[in-house]
Order: sequence, then C-alpha cells, then structure tokens
Amino acid sequence: MIKKVIPFVHNKLKEIVTTDDYVIDGTCGNGYDTLFLARLARKVYAFDIQELAIENTKERMKRNRIHNVEFILDSHANVEKYVEEEIKAAVFNLGYLPGSDMQVVTTGEATLTAVQKIQEHLVIGGLICFVVYTGKFGGEDESNDLLEYVHALDPKEFNVIKYCYLNNEKAPYVIMMEKL
Amino acid sequence: MIKKVIPFVHNKLKEIVTTDDYVIDGTCGNGYDTLFLARLARKVYAFDIQELAIENTKERMKRNRIHNVEFILDSHANVEKYVEEEIKAAVFNLGYLPGSDMQVVTTGEATLTAVQKIQEHLVIGGLICFVVYTGKFGGEDESNDLLEYVHALDPKEFNVIKYCYLNNEKAPYVIMMEKL
Repeated sequence: MIKKVIPFVHNKLKEIVTTDDYVIDGTCGNGYDTLFLARLARKVYAFDIQELAIENTKERMKRNRIHNVEFILDSHANVEKYVEEEIKAAVFNLGYLPGSDMQVVTTGEATLTAVQKIQEHLVIGGLICFVVYTGKFGGEDESNDLLEYVHALDPKEFNVIKYCYLNNEKAPYVIMMEKL
Repeated sequence: MIKKVIPFVHNKLKEIVTTDDYVIDGTCGNGYDTLFLARLARKVYAFDIQELAIENTKERMKRNRIHNVEFILDSHANVEKYVEEEIKAAVFNLGYLPGSDMQVVTTGEATLTAVQKIQEHLVIGGLICFVVYTGKFGGEDESNDLLEYVHALDPKEFNVIKYCYLNNEKAPYVIMMEKL
C-alpha cells in the first residue's frame, strides 16, 4: 500500500535509527513522533515552544514508561544550547499544536536556523525529515522557504527528496534530507 | 538510505505483486523492469514500439531462463487488444530506449490512453507506476500531461503520490497511482 506521510517518515527512521543514536524531535507537539523515536534511539531531544506541548509529551512518555527523552521548552532554533552529540535524525512536524491556538505556528525562519545547525552535526547517512502542512496559517510561506533552501543544497552533500500526494492538496507532504 | 527512483518503484511492486498476478511493462526498453516483474508475477505483458527493445528484452529473458513474458511489438495505447485479465500492476518507464534513437520517445497521449484503459482493469490495491524523465526530448510536455491527468483523479478512487529529488533537476521522478 502507498504509505501516508507519517508512516513514510517513520518507516525511514526505523531503517536507520538504532539504540546507539541521538535524535531530535524539533516539534514534539503531542508527543507521537517523540514516542516513536524514543523506542528506537538512545536519547531524544524533544523541543517545543509551547508549555502545553511539553506537558502533553511528558505525560505520554510517562504513560509509556519512556525515560530517554530530554524535554526542552525552547525554539528548535536554539538547538546548539542543548545538543552536543552527533545526531542521526531530526524530525520537524511543522505547524500548530493540534488542539491548541492555531496561530502559534512554526516559522520558516526558526526552522531553517535549526536545520542549518543540525545539518552540521548530522552523521553521514543521517536524516532530517519535515512534514509540511501548506493548509495551515503561514504554512504556504514556510513551505516555500524550506523548498527554496533545500533546492540549493549541494547534491554531493545531501540527497533531498519530496514525497507528496498529487490529488489531495490538503494532505501534508514530506521533505527528507540525507547527508552523504 | 533514501531510495533512488527505480528501487523506490521496485520496492513497492515487491510488496504487492505475487505469483498469482498479471502485470504490464508498458515500455520494456532493455528489459530490466520486465525481468524484475517476471520474477514476481504470474505473467508479464511487455510492450514496446521498437523492435530493438523487444529483441533486447527477449534476449534478457532467455539469458535468465524466464518464460512468463508475452512480448508485444505495439504501443501500450493498444493494451486492450492483448490483455484480458485483471491487472495488479503496470510500469511505465517513460522516455527513449537507452542506446537507440533519442527522438523515438513515449508520448503523453499514448501513455494517457494506456493508463485510462489499464486503470479500469486494475484490481483494488493495484498500482500504476511511472518513471518520468523531464530532461529528454518532449519529456517536459509528457510530464505536464501526466501531472494534469493524475491531479484530477478522484481521491476516493485513487491515491496518487509523487516521489522526486528536490536538489537534482536531471533526476527522473516517480508518479504512483493506487486503486482504492
């Protein structure tokens, strides 16, 4: 079956992330990606700018008896303040926190700052994955900023692919960067 | 690792095609996809408009002791003349025959005719896969025709996804239609 966007991303992460690896959830939201990553990796750095997101993610980890997550109530743009290790994968599920204020959104600027910092600390073969929602408030701009950025990446340094639905404009799409 | 376009398509085909299934190679070329399909399926209908392609594919099947391929020297637009069974998958590796006249190419019109006929005979869960080369002679038009066509497909009847490189314009891309 053709995979929806989240299973497509999770499937790739499962292929590469091992219990030796440090990974980043750039937007922990309600903690679904954090939980998925925590079960694969040595440690997850889980960022969010909203206290509610951090609380919800903490609660989800507690219920699932997960102890290898560091919760960071700050923008992923400040990633270097918290992460020292080399990174195997980073996930950015862009947009607003489901069930909260729809105008508090990720921005292209913060995301690009984070990506530029993370890509320097990414191991060879490591992935940075984005799930992009163009339908949300500000989503079209963020999507364009991101596309412009990855389009210019040297194909000798990164493979960059897009995975999207063609007959469903409301569906989110995936951008995946692989360090070569 | 992020898959290149042909492995991406082959991987999906491997997930769904079984030895009970009839499949179509709409453009057998030098027979690489035909061979891959023949090892999975009950029978492959292998189309090409060039005698050299049919000869090369026959030769490849013979070398690999493959006997479940029907070779058809005709346009895939005439698919209904040759195929009666329900179809599990069809592959169109668009463009010219590698190593031959680069101006003998597949066209959007013939491809769309073939697709419209095949999609009626596709089983639920069946796939039609395209590998599209925009760099080749006429490739841009064919790509646009195809994108316009699949964009209009009812999302209740087909999932349609695109898989492409964002930082390598010369690379081919994939369109995949899944019947729902």
